[in-house]
Amino acid sequence: MKIVCEKEKLIKGINSVVKGVSSKTTMPILEGILLQTNDNKLKLTTYDLEIGIEYIISCDIKEEGSTVVNAIMFSEIIRKLPNTDIYISLNEQNLLVIECEGSLYKLATMNPDEFPELPKIDIHNSIEIEQNKLKNMVRKTIFAVSNEENRPIFTGCLFEIKNNKLNVVAVDGFRLAWKSVFLDSKTHDFSAVIPGKTLNEVNKIIQDSFDMVKIGVSKNQALFELDDCKIVTRLLEGEFLNYRNAIPNGFETRIRVNKNILQDCFERISLISSSSIEKEKKYPVKLFIDIGKLTISCTNQTGDAKEEIYLSTEGKNLEIGFNPKYYLDALKSIDDEEIFVDFGTNISPAIIRSVEEDGDYIYMILPIRLKE
Amino acid sequence: MKIVCEKEKLIKGINSVVKGVSSKTTMPILEGILLQTNDNKLKLTTYDLEIGIEYIISCDIKEEGSTVVNAIMFSEIIRKLPNTDIYISLNEQNLLVIECEGSLYKLATMNPDEFPELPKIDIHNSIEIEQNKLKNMVRKTIFAVSNEENRPIFTGCLFEIKNNKLNVVAVDGFRLAWKSVFLDSKTHDFSAVIPGKTLNEVNKIIQDSFDMVKIGVSKNQALFELDDCKIVTRLLEGEFLNYRNAIPNGFETRIRVNKNILQDCFERISLISSSSIEKEKKYPVKLFIDIGKLTISCTNQTGDAKEEIYLSTEGKNLEIGFNPKYYLDALKSIDDEEIFVDFGTNISPAIIRSVEEDGDYIYMILPIRLKE
Repeated sequence: MKIVCEKEKLIKGINSVVKGVSSKTTMPILEGILLQTNDNKLKLTTYDLEIGIEYIISCDIKEEGSTVVNAIMFSEIIRKLPNTDIYISLNEQNLLVIECEGSLYKLATMNPDEFPELPKIDIHNSIEIEQNKLKNMVRKTIFAVSNEENRPIFTGCLFEIKNNKLNVVAVDGFRLAWKSVFLDSKTHDFSAVIPGKTLNEVNKIIQDSFDMVKIGVSKNQALFELDDCKIVTRLLEGEFLNYRNAIPNGFETRIRVNKNILQDCFERISLISSSSIEKEKKYPVKLFIDIGKLTISCTNQTGDAKEEIYLSTEGKNLEIGFNPKYYLDALKSIDDEEIFVDFGTNISPAIIRSVEEDGDYIYMILPIRLKE
Repeated sequence: MKIVCEKEKLIKGINSVVKGVSSKTTMPILEGILLQTNDNKLKLTTYDLEIGIEYIISCDIKEEGSTVVNAIMFSEIIRKLPNTDIYISLNEQNLLVIECEGSLYKLATMNPDEFPELPKIDIHNSIEIEQNKLKNMVRKTIFAVSNEENRPIFTGCLFEIKNNKLNVVAVDGFRLAWKSVFLDSKTHDFSAVIPGKTLNEVNKIIQDSFDMVKIGVSKNQALFELDDCKIVTRLLEGEFLNYRNAIPNGFETRIRVNKNILQDCFERISLISSSSIEKEKKYPVKLFIDIGKLTISCTNQTGDAKEEIYLSTEGKNLEIGFNPKYYLDALKSIDDEEIFVDFGTNISPAIIRSVEEDGDYIYMILPIRLKE
């Protein structure tokens, strides 16, 4: 193997694939990047047996070949080299030789035949979506995926294509986040649950750009395809929540509020609610809605907190308890200025949505029962 | 106690004193800020029994009083309040009441009589120096203080005033950093060793400004005095190194090199030298100086590294081993472009200094003996 490659191109590829490198593994080969040349292209591959990432760089191939090199070491050295052409080759001792101006590095390599093959994907269904749109959808839902491995299906986001609309939904038993967007081209209905961990990586790789990303799905796998990069992941198996039925219709009490004001109040009050010395005890914050006024309060050993917001209300007065963290997660991901929060009784979920007609997200948060 | 204070003023004071709050303590009172009113001023004090910090804020005192409140909780709440006047008072239940627009917080307090008194300092000697100059002197030396508590005197920086010059010196047995600056006004000679931990805190509080800071010293204590802030610290006891005698005169081999180029080489090569699987083994980098050329190299299980720099040399050829971290720490703190590195034999220290006539810093680094 013998190649010449601009540093900038190489580092862009490395930055994308290192995200797929296994950090906790007993198999050193999974800590590596597979380098493969083919037809004036260099392919970089990483695979942690869950997520596989491939990146293609066009460069000057003097001699074909392949090898595996420790990803962290390779990326750190390339990153610190001067911004010019880098010469990479494999010598007789199977060391990867990196040359650039006065610098000469030789790194131990591993056998490329031992690098696990990425699963072949037989794509049944696919959609195309702008990268910025996908990035935004993931950002607006992923915080609500469950961390509990005993119900693995909820550690991922549902991608549901229905009536030419993509719905991304996450739920963890206490709250639900649902974001939807119309697709530009006609598509069959289908759905798949993609691991949250994969979506975190995908969101680091895709850009805030209008370039498209193609999402293809087979029975057990999904493929995210960009111009020069492919990300392969397994799908989560099982029955996802029938989320449409979980969301109540109508309301008994409604508030209309400036998102930032509500967020600031929850941020301050959660300083008190989360500061309890008895960590295991949950101290909910109490929302009290009276005509034209919302009062949020919390009391524990650290102190008392009370926040009052004057706003427009509709329906009955209500006293209801919540974990403020769930509100904060949802509010932080909302870009609109004005929102509705709809309540039923003090034991039914609250619904956050945009005041705008075309609001395309819904957050649902379950209450905590208040002690008398 | 009853005061009204602008948020900005209050937060500036809190930011300065929270740096003195004890993080690892079994005494809750040391996790607190002492609030004391006096003559339309509010004094904030923190003290971890090593470093004490006082900050004076002018504000509207409606009723005199004093109390102690948990520093982290108090600072977090103030930080998140809107940018306007904040009303602070002590109620009948001894709760600290914080009011600001729609927000009302009540925090548990502690007895101000139990807050330890800061040591009174009987200043024998003092100097004044611009804050930016002190900040720079500390930055250029503090990395070389020792972390080893078995020789406590070397966990601090020597402040030596001699012939109207301030010398700040740090040494850890493997290297030495010495920075000096002329003082504007005549001063008696004296010296004191100030704990590195204190200097880190001082450097966070002083600004890159031309405002003066006064450093006063008693037998066991030092006082840093700014316009609105005082920092009290104990001094380290013991005999500091006679550092002038430790620095060799003359050289057998000299290189003149661009600081950034040398730093880049050491940064890359330390990726290899610090990556050994056998962590306990020290892999020095080898410097080889030939006419007009410096070669830095390193070999271990991870790989081989070699860096070549063409530069101007003087004197004998030399092969010598070093810990690259010590070079990097020194080089990172140098602002000059061109430096000399002077060597003696391969078992004597190297000296880094500025090419400029008025270079006012010296770094000394001991070599590591190379295996044959």
